[in-house]
Amino acid sequence: MTDIALYTVNNLWLLLATCMVFIMHLGFASLEAGFVQEKNVVNILFKNSLIICIGLISYAFVGFNLMYPGGGDFFGFAGFGLSLPEGDAGGINYADGNYHYYTDFIFQAMFAATCATIVSGAVAERIKLESFLIFSILLVSLSYPITGMWHWGGGWLSKLETPFYDFAGSTVVHAAGGFAALACVLLIGPRSGKYIDGESTAIRGHNMPLATIGVFLLWFGWYGFNGGSVLSADASGVSTVFVTTSLAAAAGGIGAFFCSLFYIKTYDLSMVLNGILGGLVGITAGADQMGVIDSILIGLIAGVIIPFSVVFFDKIKIDDPVGATSVHLACGIWGTLAVGIFGAKAGGAQIVTQLIGIVSVGIFSFVFAFVIFYIIKATMGVRVSEGMEQKGLDITEHDMTAYDFN
Amino acid sequence: MTDIALYTVNNLWLLLATCMVFIMHLGFASLEAGFVQEKNVVNILFKNSLIICIGLISYAFVGFNLMYPGGGDFFGFAGFGLSLPEGDAGGINYADGNYHYYTDFIFQAMFAATCATIVSGAVAERIKLESFLIFSILLVSLSYPITGMWHWGGGWLSKLETPFYDFAGSTVVHAAGGFAALACVLLIGPRSGKYIDGESTAIRGHNMPLATIGVFLLWFGWYGFNGGSVLSADASGVSTVFVTTSLAAAAGGIGAFFCSLFYIKTYDLSMVLNGILGGLVGITAGADQMGVIDSILIGLIAGVIIPFSVVFFDKIKIDDPVGATSVHLACGIWGTLAVGIFGAKAGGAQIVTQLIGIVSVGIFSFVFAFVIFYIIKATMGVRVSEGMEQKGLDITEHDMTAYDFN
Amino acid sequence: MTDIALYTVNNLWLLLATCMVFIMHLGFASLEAGFVQEKNVVNILFKNSLIICIGLISYAFVGFNLMYPGGGDFFGFAGFGLSLPEGDAGGINYADGNYHYYTDFIFQAMFAATCATIVSGAVAERIKLESFLIFSILLVSLSYPITGMWHWGGGWLSKLETPFYDFAGSTVVHAAGGFAALACVLLIGPRSGKYIDGESTAIRGHNMPLATIGVFLLWFGWYGFNGGSVLSADASGVSTVFVTTSLAAAAGGIGAFFCSLFYIKTYDLSMVLNGILGGLVGITAGADQMGVIDSILIGLIAGVIIPFSVVFFDKIKIDDPVGATSVHLACGIWGTLAVGIFGAKAGGAQIVTQLIGIVSVGIFSFVFAFVIFYIIKATMGVRVSEGMEQKGLDITEHDMTAYDFN
Repeated sequence: MTDIALYTVNNLWLLLATCMVFIMHLGFASLEAGFVQEKNVVNILFKNSLIICIGLISYAFVGFNLMYPGGGDFFGFAGFGLSLPEGDAGGINYADGNYHYYTDFIFQAMFAATCATIVSGAVAERIKLESFLIFSILLVSLSYPITGMWHWGGGWLSKLETPFYDFAGSTVVHAAGGFAALACVLLIGPRSGKYIDGESTAIRGHNMPLATIGVFLLWFGWYGFNGGSVLSADASGVSTVFVTTSLAAAAGGIGAFFCSLFYIKTYDLSMVLNGILGGLVGITAGADQMGVIDSILIGLIAGVIIPFSVVFFDKIKIDDPVGATSVHLACGIWGTLAVGIFGAKAGGAQIVTQLIGIVSVGIFSFVFAFVIFYIIKATMGVRVSEGMEQKGLDITEHDMTAYDFN
Repeated sequence: MTDIALYTVNNLWLLLATCMVFIMHLGFASLEAGFVQEKNVVNILFKNSLIICIGLISYAFVGFNLMYPGGGDFFGFAGFGLSLPEGDAGGINYADGNYHYYTDFIFQAMFAATCATIVSGAVAERIKLESFLIFSILLVSLSYPITGMWHWGGGWLSKLETPFYDFAGSTVVHAAGGFAALACVLLIGPRSGKYIDGESTAIRGHNMPLATIGVFLLWFGWYGFNGGSVLSADASGVSTVFVTTSLAAAAGGIGAFFCSLFYIKTYDLSMVLNGILGGLVGITAGADQMGVIDSILIGLIAGVIIPFSVVFFDKIKIDDPVGATSVHLACGIWGTLAVGIFGAKAGGAQIVTQLIGIVSVGIFSFVFAFVIFYIIKATMGVRVSEGMEQKGLDITEHDMTAYDFN
Repeated sequence: MTDIALYTVNNLWLLLATCMVFIMHLGFASLEAGFVQEKNVVNILFKNSLIICIGLISYAFVGFNLMYPGGGDFFGFAGFGLSLPEGDAGGINYADGNYHYYTDFIFQAMFAATCATIVSGAVAERIKLESFLIFSILLVSLSYPITGMWHWGGGWLSKLETPFYDFAGSTVVHAAGGFAALACVLLIGPRSGKYIDGESTAIRGHNMPLATIGVFLLWFGWYGFNGGSVLSADASGVSTVFVTTSLAAAAGGIGAFFCSLFYIKTYDLSMVLNGILGGLVGITAGADQMGVIDSILIGLIAGVIIPFSVVFFDKIKIDDPVGATSVHLACGIWGTLAVGIFGAKAGGAQIVTQLIGIVSVGIFSFVFAFVIFYIIKATMGVRVSEGMEQKGLDITEHDMTAYDFN
C-alpha cells in the first residue's frame, strides 16, 4: 500500500516542478525580448504570452492523449480532452502512487509549450503573427507529442533492444524544438539587412539586463525541468539531478567564457549566457546518471560548442537572433550523445541507439515543421512585408511601442 | 494521531505557497511600474515596496486577530499581536494538524497586503504618498480582515443556509480590493489631461517588458494563492487547483486576444496580459471544484470581459491606469457568480448566496474606503498639485528619476 | 529508523531552499546592475553570471571539503572533489537521515558564491575583470570555507564554553563578505570623480525598477537562505524562521523609511530597499529563536542603521556604489550582536562570544582579502585605466552596450 505522506510529497514536488517549468516561459520571454531589437519587443512578448496559453489548452485537448496514448509504437491517441480515472477520487493508484493524474497532465503540459518557444526566438523579428500562432498550435498539439510518445509514451524508441535514453529531453524537447526552428528559419530566410554582399552584419539585442534575467530564470526553471523528470521526490534521485544540472550549467558558462575569449577575443556576455543554457541543455539527457566530473565535462563541452555553433550558423546564413539553434539543437544533440559516452551504460550500442533517437526525432520534427510552414508560406505567407520589418513589428502589428522614455 | 511526515509536508506546502504569494507583490510592482508613465515609476515602486512592509506588520498586530477572532458573526477581535498557542511546542494540534500557527499567520498576512496593492495601481500617478500609506494601513488592518472574517473567519456568510462560497478570494480579496479602488478613483478623479472635452486620451505605459514580467510573476504566484488555499498538500486537492488555475489563465489570455482583435481591431498586448489576470481572478472563487471545461469557460469569459470592461470604465471616466478595476472587480464578481453557475452546488440558491456575498462585501469595502478616503481628502488632501503631476511624482516626491540613460 | 517520507520531505525542502538561494544570485545581479551607471551594466552582469559558475565549481573541488572537513579547530581538509559516502545508495544515513550528501553540497555551494557577490557590488564600475575573477575564486575556495568551518564545520567557534551563535550567517556569510569588500574598496579607491575637493558627488544608479526587482528577489531567496538553514522541514522550525524573517525585512523597510525621511528629508527609494535588505541581514543570525517583537525590533534597528551607515561610509570616502558595506557589514554585525541581546541565551557571556566571532571572522576575512587583493594590485593591477573608467567598462572590456534604444 502506498504511504499517503510519501504520495503527498512526491506529488507536491511534481507540482512545484511544474511552477518552475512555468517560470522557464518567463525566462524565454525575457531572453528573447532582450536579444531582439527595440522595435520588435512587444511582438515577441505577445507571442510568448500567447504560446503558453495556446500550449496549455491544446495540450489538454489533444497533445496529452497523443503523447501518452497507453499503447502503440509510432502513433496512438487516447481521445480528446482529459479524463480523470474513474473510481479513483484520490488518484492514489495512478502512476504507482507517485502523483495524481492531474499532476501528470499539468507537468507535461508545461513542458510541451517550451518546444514552440524555441522556434519563437529563431524566427523573431520578421515572422507574421497569425502564421506563427497557427504553426505553434500544430507543433505543440501534434509534432511534439508524437515524437515524445516514441520515447516517453511507451513507443518504439523505448522498446529498442538497447533502449534510447533521454532523461528529461535533450532530444525529445530541445533538439526537437531546434530542428523545427531550423526548418522554419530556412523557409523564412534571414532578417532584412542581415547579410549584405555575403557579409554578416551584427544586429544587436536591445536589452542585456532583460536577457540576463531570462537566463537566470531558465536556470532556476531547469531544476524543475530536470528535477521533476525524476517523477518523484526520491531524495537520491532529485539531489543527484540538482548537482549534475548545477555543475553542467556552471561549466557551460565557463566553457563559453574561455572559448569566446580565445576564439572571438572578447569577454562576450551573450556567449556566457548561451553557454550556461548550452550546459543545461547538454546535461538534460543524462542528468540522473552522470557523476560530478562527467557533468562538468558535458557542460564544459556544451559551453565550448556555443561560440563555434553561433559562428557556424551565421556563416551558412541561418539567421537566428537569439541563438536558439546553437543552444537547443547543437547542445541537445551533444547531450543526447553524451549519454552514450559518459552514461551508466556507455558504449557502442548505446551510442548507436542515441543516434537513432536523434535522427528519427530530428527528421520527423524537421519534416513536420518544414511541410506545415511551407503550406502556411504558400497560402497566407509567413513573413511580414519589407516595410513592416523596417518599421518594426511593434508599430505595424501591435500599434504600440515597448517603451515610452522621455 | 497526526502523521508527522504528513504534517510536515502539509505545513511545508503552505510555507512555499507563502513565498509564491510574496512573489505576487513583485508581480504587482512590476506590472504597475510598467503600465505607468516614466515620470511616476519610482513613486509606484516606493509605494509597492512599503505596502508589503506595512501590510505584514499591521496584519501581525491587528489584522490576523480581526480576521480569525475565534467567534462572532460580523465582528470579533482576539487581541493585539500574535500568540503562539500555549503548551504546543510543535503546533501539531493546531488546524487539525495540517500546519503550524505561525504558518497560518504568514500565509494569511501575504494575502492581506495584496488588497492594498490593487488600490495602488488604480490611483497611480496622482495620489499623495502619505495619504496613500495611511489609507493602506487602515484597509489592510481593518476593512479586509473584517469582511474576510465574514467568510473565512467563521462569520455570517459562512453560516447562511446555503453558505457563501469563495475558495481563494475572487470576492474576499479581489473584488474587495476592486471596490475600494473604485471608491478611491471616484474621489481622486482622473489624471490631469486624461479627459479633454469629454474625449479620453490614451496615456501609454512606459515599459512593456516590465509589465509582462509582472503578469508572468503574478500567474506563478497564483499557484500559491489558489494552491495554498487548499490548506494542505492533499494531492487531489492541490493538483486539481493547479489544472483549473492554469487553464483559466490560458483561456483568459485567449479570450482577451480574440475579443480585442474583433472589438478593438488590434493585437493588443495589454489586453492579453490583463486577460490572463482576469482568468486567474475569475477561477479563484471555484478553483477547487471546477472541471476542465468549466475552468476554460470561466477563464474565456473573464478574458472577454476585460476589453469591454476597460472600455466601459474609460467611457464613464473612471481613470484607472493599470486596469485594476476591470481585472479585480469585474472578473472578481464574475468568478464569484461562476461558482453558482458551474460549481458543485450550482443553482438558484447558490447564485443568490453568491450575490449576497458580493453585495455585502462590496458595500462594506466601498463605503469603508469612501469614508476613510473622504476624510483624508478633507483633511490632508489625497492629490498632488497640478504642477507636481505635470513634472511627475518621481522628481517632486522622491527627488530622483527611475532611469538615467545617456 | 528514519521514516522515508519524512526523509524525503526534509531533503526536498533543502533542495527547494537551494533553488531559492540561487534566485538570490539573480537578485544580486539585478540590484547591482540597477545601482550602477548605464556604461557599466554589461560588466556587472558578466561578473555576476560568472561568479555563480565559478563559485559552484570551485566549491565542489575545494570549498566544501574545507568547510566541512570532519575534524580540526582552525583548519581541515577532507580532500579534493566530492565523494558520495560509500555503501549508502540512498544517502539515508547521512546527516541523521535529514538530507542526502549531494543536497548538503549543493545547498552549501549556493551559499558560498553569495560571499563573492557582496564584493562585486562594492568594487563595481572600476575593477579589472580578470583581477576580480581571480580574487573571487580564492575568496570562495579558501577564505569563506575556512571561517565558515570555524562555526558550521565543527571548528573552534562552535566549541567555546558559550558557543558562538550565527544561525544562517549574519557574520559567517554577510559580514565576512562585507569585511572582504571593505578591504578591496580601501585598496582600489573611489570611482573617478566621486570625491572632488573633499566633496562627495552623487553618482546615480541607472535603473530603479531593476534594483527593486533585485531586492524583492533577494527577499524571496532569503526564505530559502534562512529557512533552509533549519536543515530540515521541521514545521515549527521553518515556520518560525519564515515569520521572523518576514517581519524583520518589513521592519527594516519601515525603519529606513522613517530614518531617511527625518535624516535625509526625502522619500528615498534606495534607502527603503537597502533597509529591507538590512533587516534581512540583521535577522539572519537569530532567525530561529527570535519572537515576534524581537524580530521587528531587530529589523527596525537594522533599517535605521542603513541611512546613517551609508552617510558614514561616504563621509570617510569609502565609495561603495550599491551600499554593500552598509547592508552586509554593518547590519551583519548588528544581527550577530542581537543574538546576545534578544536571543534565547541573551546575556553578557553570549555578547562576548558574539564579539569574538565577529572580530575573528572579520579579521581573517579582511586580512585575507587585503593580502590577496594587494598582491593582485602589485602584479596585474586591480583597476582599469582612467580612460576606460570614463568611457565605461561595457565598451572597453566587452565591446558592447547594455541597451540599444532608439
